[in-house]
Amino acid sequence: MTEFAPFHPGGPGIIHRYAGCDASKVYSEIHAPSIVKDNLPANNFKGKLTSSTINDEWLKPPPTAPQAATPRDDSQPDLDTIINAHDFELAAQKTSTAKTWAFYSSAANDLITRDANKSLYSRIWFRPRILRNVRTVSTSSTILGLPTTLPIFISPAAMAKLIHPDGEIAIARAAQSQGIIQCISTNASYPATEIVTSIASSSNNSLPLHPFFFQLYVDKQRGRSATLLQKLHQHPNIRAIFVTADAAAAGKREADERLKADESLASPITGVAPRNDKKGGGYGRIMGSFIDPSLNWDDIAWLRAQTHLPLVLKGVMNASDVRLACEHGLEGVMLSNHGGRNLDTSPPAVLTLLECHKRCPDVFRKLEIYIDGGIRRGADVLKCIALGATAVGLGRPVLFATAYGQLGVEHLIEIMRDELEVAMRNCGVTSLREAGPWLVNTGDLDHLVPGEEGHPYVKDWSRREGKREREGSVKSKL
Amino acid sequence: MTEFAPFHPGGPGIIHRYAGCDASKVYSEIHAPSIVKDNLPANNFKGKLTSSTINDEWLKPPPTAPQAATPRDDSQPDLDTIINAHDFELAAQKTSTAKTWAFYSSAANDLITRDANKSLYSRIWFRPRILRNVRTVSTSSTILGLPTTLPIFISPAAMAKLIHPDGEIAIARAAQSQGIIQCISTNASYPATEIVTSIASSSNNSLPLHPFFFQLYVDKQRGRSATLLQKLHQHPNIRAIFVTADAAAAGKREADERLKADESLASPITGVAPRNDKKGGGYGRIMGSFIDPSLNWDDIAWLRAQTHLPLVLKGVMNASDVRLACEHGLEGVMLSNHGGRNLDTSPPAVLTLLECHKRCPDVFRKLEIYIDGGIRRGADVLKCIALGATAVGLGRPVLFATAYGQLGVEHLIEIMRDELEVAMRNCGVTSLREAGPWLVNTGDLDHLVPGEEGHPYVKDWSRREGKREREGSVKSKL
Amino acid sequence: MTEFAPFHPGGPGIIHRYAGCDASKVYSEIHAPSIVKDNLPANNFKGKLTSSTINDEWLKPPPTAPQAATPRDDSQPDLDTIINAHDFELAAQKTSTAKTWAFYSSAANDLITRDANKSLYSRIWFRPRILRNVRTVSTSSTILGLPTTLPIFISPAAMAKLIHPDGEIAIARAAQSQGIIQCISTNASYPATEIVTSIASSSNNSLPLHPFFFQLYVDKQRGRSATLLQKLHQHPNIRAIFVTADAAAAGKREADERLKADESLASPITGVAPRNDKKGGGYGRIMGSFIDPSLNWDDIAWLRAQTHLPLVLKGVMNASDVRLACEHGLEGVMLSNHGGRNLDTSPPAVLTLLECHKRCPDVFRKLEIYIDGGIRRGADVLKCIALGATAVGLGRPVLFATAYGQLGVEHLIEIMRDELEVAMRNCGVTSLREAGPWLVNTGDLDHLVPGEEGHPYVKDWSRREGKREREGSVKSKL
Amino acid sequence: MTEFAPFHPGGPGIIHRYAGCDASKVYSEIHAPSIVKDNLPANNFKGKLTSSTINDEWLKPPPTAPQAATPRDDSQPDLDTIINAHDFELAAQKTSTAKTWAFYSSAANDLITRDANKSLYSRIWFRPRILRNVRTVSTSSTILGLPTTLPIFISPAAMAKLIHPDGEIAIARAAQSQGIIQCISTNASYPATEIVTSIASSSNNSLPLHPFFFQLYVDKQRGRSATLLQKLHQHPNIRAIFVTADAAAAGKREADERLKADESLASPITGVAPRNDKKGGGYGRIMGSFIDPSLNWDDIAWLRAQTHLPLVLKGVMNASDVRLACEHGLEGVMLSNHGGRNLDTSPPAVLTLLECHKRCPDVFRKLEIYIDGGIRRGADVLKCIALGATAVGLGRPVLFATAYGQLGVEHLIEIMRDELEVAMRNCGVTSLREAGPWLVNTGDLDHLVPGEEGHPYVKDWSRREGKREREGSVKSKL
Repeated sequence: MTEFAPFHPGGPGIIHRYAGCDASKVYSEIHAPSIVKDNLPANNFKGKLTSSTINDEWLKPPPTAPQAATPRDDSQPDLDTIINAHDFELAAQKTSTAKTWAFYSSAANDLITRDANKSLYSRIWFRPRILRNVRTVSTSSTILGLPTTLPIFISPAAMAKLIHPDGEIAIARAAQSQGIIQCISTNASYPATEIVTSIASSSNNSLPLHPFFFQLYVDKQRGRSATLLQKLHQHPNIRAIFVTADAAAAGKREADERLKADESLASPITGVAPRNDKKGGGYGRIMGSFIDPSLNWDDIAWLRAQTHLPLVLKGVMNASDVRLACEHGLEGVMLSNHGGRNLDTSPPAVLTLLECHKRCPDVFRKLEIYIDGGIRRGADVLKCIALGATAVGLGRPVLFATAYGQLGVEHLIEIMRDELEVAMRNCGVTSLREAGPWLVNTGDLDHLVPGEEGHPYVKDWSRREGKREREGSVKSKL
Repeated sequence: MTEFAPFHPGGPGIIHRYAGCDASKVYSEIHAPSIVKDNLPANNFKGKLTSSTINDEWLKPPPTAPQAATPRDDSQPDLDTIINAHDFELAAQKTSTAKTWAFYSSAANDLITRDANKSLYSRIWFRPRILRNVRTVSTSSTILGLPTTLPIFISPAAMAKLIHPDGEIAIARAAQSQGIIQCISTNASYPATEIVTSIASSSNNSLPLHPFFFQLYVDKQRGRSATLLQKLHQHPNIRAIFVTADAAAAGKREADERLKADESLASPITGVAPRNDKKGGGYGRIMGSFIDPSLNWDDIAWLRAQTHLPLVLKGVMNASDVRLACEHGLEGVMLSNHGGRNLDTSPPAVLTLLECHKRCPDVFRKLEIYIDGGIRRGADVLKCIALGATAVGLGRPVLFATAYGQLGVEHLIEIMRDELEVAMRNCGVTSLREAGPWLVNTGDLDHLVPGEEGHPYVKDWSRREGKREREGSVKSKL
Repeated sequence: MTEFAPFHPGGPGIIHRYAGCDASKVYSEIHAPSIVKDNLPANNFKGKLTSSTINDEWLKPPPTAPQAATPRDDSQPDLDTIINAHDFELAAQKTSTAKTWAFYSSAANDLITRDANKSLYSRIWFRPRILRNVRTVSTSSTILGLPTTLPIFISPAAMAKLIHPDGEIAIARAAQSQGIIQCISTNASYPATEIVTSIASSSNNSLPLHPFFFQLYVDKQRGRSATLLQKLHQHPNIRAIFVTADAAAAGKREADERLKADESLASPITGVAPRNDKKGGGYGRIMGSFIDPSLNWDDIAWLRAQTHLPLVLKGVMNASDVRLACEHGLEGVMLSNHGGRNLDTSPPAVLTLLECHKRCPDVFRKLEIYIDGGIRRGADVLKCIALGATAVGLGRPVLFATAYGQLGVEHLIEIMRDELEVAMRNCGVTSLREAGPWLVNTGDLDHLVPGEEGHPYVKDWSRREGKREREGSVKSKL
Repeated sequence: MTEFAPFHPGGPGIIHRYAGCDASKVYSEIHAPSIVKDNLPANNFKGKLTSSTINDEWLKPPPTAPQAATPRDDSQPDLDTIINAHDFELAAQKTSTAKTWAFYSSAANDLITRDANKSLYSRIWFRPRILRNVRTVSTSSTILGLPTTLPIFISPAAMAKLIHPDGEIAIARAAQSQGIIQCISTNASYPATEIVTSIASSSNNSLPLHPFFFQLYVDKQRGRSATLLQKLHQHPNIRAIFVTADAAAAGKREADERLKADESLASPITGVAPRNDKKGGGYGRIMGSFIDPSLNWDDIAWLRAQTHLPLVLKGVMNASDVRLACEHGLEGVMLSNHGGRNLDTSPPAVLTLLECHKRCPDVFRKLEIYIDGGIRRGADVLKCIALGATAVGLGRPVLFATAYGQLGVEHLIEIMRDELEVAMRNCGVTSLREAGPWLVNTGDLDHLVPGEEGHPYVKDWSRREGKREREGSVKSKL
């Protein structure tokens, strides 16, 4: 370990802290078992432990866990008192560590986008129809041709293990049992392959494998991304790649920055570990340092060459880019502002969805459109579907539900299913195909939906030319 | 009782709890006397009680009442300090049980519709006229040809006995003495026939009977609804049937779900009793389980065949459905979102009223339009009348006033009458016929009123076709 | 007094309470000295008091003052710490009796109009111009041809004596010293003639008399109004009559109703005294009982016959009525909603002012337009002037300033003057004539300004006809 | 000193207070050393102090400092916990004296403009573009031909010494080290020449001098302004004059007025000292008494004659004045409302910027447009640049950061730089030239942007003529 310590993705400190102790327990709390298997160079493998060699000194208790890992309040409400997504959030706020809460709940700067993501749904009225036979109602749909029991998938979100030891594996199992698709984050706490395998092993082998999506941050070292994709291709139930395009720079998530990062964490997929620096301890910023800000439209061809899987562009915030995505042959776009975490006052995705209708309605025929951010109710889902989304992603609510492990996530999905069914029935709709724009009244938002490519009354934009003229004239004075 | 217990609509528990005791008192607290008379099979009638047979054991006190029945605060304000509908609500919040308050005040999900129902009236300005002789002013009108002293009727609302032992009977007596019409709920705490009779018996027999309306939830077992209508026809003062159409699925009224339901309650009309289940203890959801979600426009003909009474469709939220109601020959529609209790973000009824003007102004000539939800002031009533409503319904305010029994409801109606008269005088209007759309300025709401049938700028809605194209293309990749 | 007691406008109770005591002090606290002089029938005048006849019994202290007269807090801030109109309001709230505060501050129902009166000014932006020589700036103007140092007059407001023994006399002296005009209320605590004389006597007799306006509520007994006008005509400095037209019915001012009225008060002009009744103790409602709700446009001719003075119609809330006022030859209109005290959700006057521009801009050439309600800042005044008002009225702020007597009202007027001058200078305007609509940006209110006579999209308003049709069809069913 | 005391700009009181004491310390706390050097007449220079002459009496402690100078809370947060401009404001609020906080944070009247300055930026959404190579991003630009590392300069703000002894000198050093330009206020705590020199001396003499701007209030005694400009011309790194045009009258900054001014302060540039008067103790009002309210467009020619430097007009609030500025040949305009400190409800500068686009887009080619007020985030900066501003000014945030001296201001600028870069990357923009109006969605503000020169629906504005007609008609009645 002496040799390895300086190269430990989580920094040497944590290695030295456990020198001479049994680090198995603390290791397992943080890392998936597969990390050491996949990453430990052969020459550092010192052999299997003979338990008879364990003496008292060796067994002394490990140092106390870092403060950030102490739950602030252990009075987790009973799962059966949780009746909506807000309840999960409140429970998580009470019982997760301060740092986990900050990391999950924080967003860029003044939280305007994060909060608008939610509040805009409250400003869309339904236009329900009555006296339609709604005895049976179906919420099933397909995403990229894959069946799903709900028009909902699990948005990729980082480091689910912070809130529950089972992390993304709990989510995966819940997704499978509920018949919806999980999109695994590049920054998951478990290796994607382990998440995928954990499901496969528990399902009937004769059935088709339950599908997953994988969210990809393209690495500055492109080779690493290529290698990662190769690895993923070995798992046939990974069925699409969601390439994140809205993370050119990590936003300043201030609540997260203000609390010290636990440097002993490391991303099992990218190997990056957080380090506190003078800007603070924000996980999102530090662990995204490998993301390539030079990614651009020309790279779509490169991505195509690396994978045969359908490609979805995640983080689209402008109808012009939806149109470009069509032109580049992408299978889908995900309208998203990264939960408001990167660019404050970036537009809530539902505005971008409406912008597509206004500016380029043909795109709905050319690719699938997903949407996430701020969805907390089945009614929100129905509004997105009515406005042409194929499916919606759930991010933070799933993380908060993960505090209860697999059961919690299943409970959340059941709640969303129930709410969606109630909303459909009360709107007079029995299948998602029946939901159309006629179902929603967006009158309170319509003035916020941008129309033309440019600015509504900035017709004559030649400031820069003017500026050059002016510079000449000023210089002649100086 | 041993045989009966499993079939007790309120569940067997309550029967067993009182086994061997005198259950008369607790029975009377919850049930109307007529229930046992009407429902007890002859073979279960064991004879009349000889009081000399009562011994000490028999007289032991009944078990303590369930916690939900304990008033939280017994400091009910004097009725003469109550000067508006809000005061009644505050008094009820203080003095009713937590469960009763939750059941009456709760609404679906995030309460957006419930609260907007009220707040939208505050955003409509009057355009008053002055210097018109308003010495005498008349608030009288007719509803379906029946005279009323006010353009107000009592909206059907469930289980008024929760707040006062006289329940709907107190309301009926107040309605009669004030000259307005009560619409009895299918979920009333007293049988409709008993409510109707309680009035008839106390009024001068030579006078025409004071009219009532009856609100009907159509039962999944249609025969039960037919039978119920037959029973109601025996009471000639029931003059119209309001068929509820906005309850295809019970909304999640969260405050109500969070508190345990009292399983000893049962609806005397439907016989349904609440049971706590894993979703919670919401009365509305559980007691509405018999409602038929397959009810549709074709059933109007069936309803016509069951009753000779005028039919009003309750719960219309879209002008398209008002138009359909005209085409199906209904006598009236009630624009309502069920007090925001079923579908959150369903539109406040005043928006639907304005939508009718925008999209199908001819409907005002073809049927009567009623409106409810959020009306708390005489001025709100005048606004609805000015916009073409024939009358408005009062729901929660009446329930809250029932805490004071008949006197309370009379006081509420007097307050509304006084407020309406003051508003009419100060608007320069002496009769409801004079009030027209010119009287109100809806400039702050006009952008919320949907126009065309579809969505304002979603012109080309062919997502589903597009989707099929896409599915083909995606599959070819997989 | 035994004979007189039953006819005492303030009720017999107060007479009996002081039987056998020296009532001089308590009388003077409430009544102006002139009342007894003007109203006491000759046969009830029992002669002058010989002070030697006063014995101990006679001198016993009067009963304790009613609770409502006890100041809640005597820590009145120093006048020189008061720097704006809000400060005066806060000081009055702290130091006046609960009942006085309730009477002055209250407004109809939910206070929507009262509060919007103020808040709408905050939503009008200036469009200031710079680099105009604003060294000297003049705020002087004329109202009905009478010079005023400010485009501000004192709105008629009732019972100023409740907050200071000098009441309206303090206001009158301040108005004179500041060179602005007071409009005396019919419900003033002092007789109008006494207010007017108090000034005349203190000014140099050779100067023209300082002008006043008089606000008239037309009495149900028209003869009383005619007599009152005759009396006023004896005072040549009363220069115009403001006829109130927005008080057909007194609004429910709930804070005022909730507190017991002091029945020993009486209006010296109308003789009406408050009595607590089952609706509560609202001064405004009870003391307005003499107002004629049958007043109508035909009465303008009658009024013209009673007075040679210019007539201004107070309480206009609809541009249609401004147009009618022109047609009836009135000299002015006062756009006002009675401080939001009569009809809640009646429109803030600035909306009516804008409505005049939209619908009948010619009226600005035909009569003078005044405006009141919610004006608290010199900037508010400038906005009204820019939009075509000749002058604005200040109501509640003057009452609150009266807590400090004449000095307080003078201080308030100086503050308004200073604020107006600062606003003019910073807008680039040196005289009121220069202020025009170009100076204000009402973009945030424009959607609230009604246009056409009717409703913007209710084009075809024939509900009543339709209703008759329907009634026939319904009756055939019954 | 006896002779000098009556002429002491700070009033004689402070001189007498220190008579016979060592006033060096208190002098230095308030005045820059250069003041006495520059202003003390030769005959009042009594020679150098021989320290041996100092006796005990002479050394007695000076009177206690005035209460306003006592910090309310000395728990200044560590600079490295400050991560945004809001943090600096909170820290300053906690640690500066009550009077300093009041002076810096206060604004005119009801603070509507001050707060809207900030909140309007939150209502502008970005329209980000993705998949553009944003690996390298440049925030550099030029202002009047001068290079700057950021499109940000330091807005002139008065009396920075109140919060830190280094005052404007700390700011200047930070501006230099960060490569941005400081605009020195006429009311700076240090003489402009001293501020400028403090930088020059610390920079490498062979480099070009770091540039400054100077903000000029034109003095009522024009000669003083001319002299001041002559003095400034001796410093070649003063490169432009910003003439303030929005301070014709000092606004009532109420928080500032309510606290006593420290009369021992004096402006080293103008020599004016505050004095408490009956309006209160507002620094801004009192220290601006020398400003000439007669300044007008004709004076531009006079200013040109006094200086060869580029002239920028500061405080423009109407597009009409931007157009006039073009016609008068100014090099730039600064859209500003003086931080909301002079005219409440004056328009936030971003509305004026939009107004320019709507009404006179050609001005962007003719001069440079700067903007300030309410900018707190790098994203706000980017929005202004996208809408055509050349640069933005930071005012209050810099004052608050000065509490930490030079390091604090540098930290603030680094934060803004980082935020701007993040915003640019996440918008898909790599240089400021690429940012255009297409980048922002102002749909939530567009209704607030005035269009035509006049008022949108006040077409026929001839009130004054009308008024004259009316006056005739009224007079004939009187």
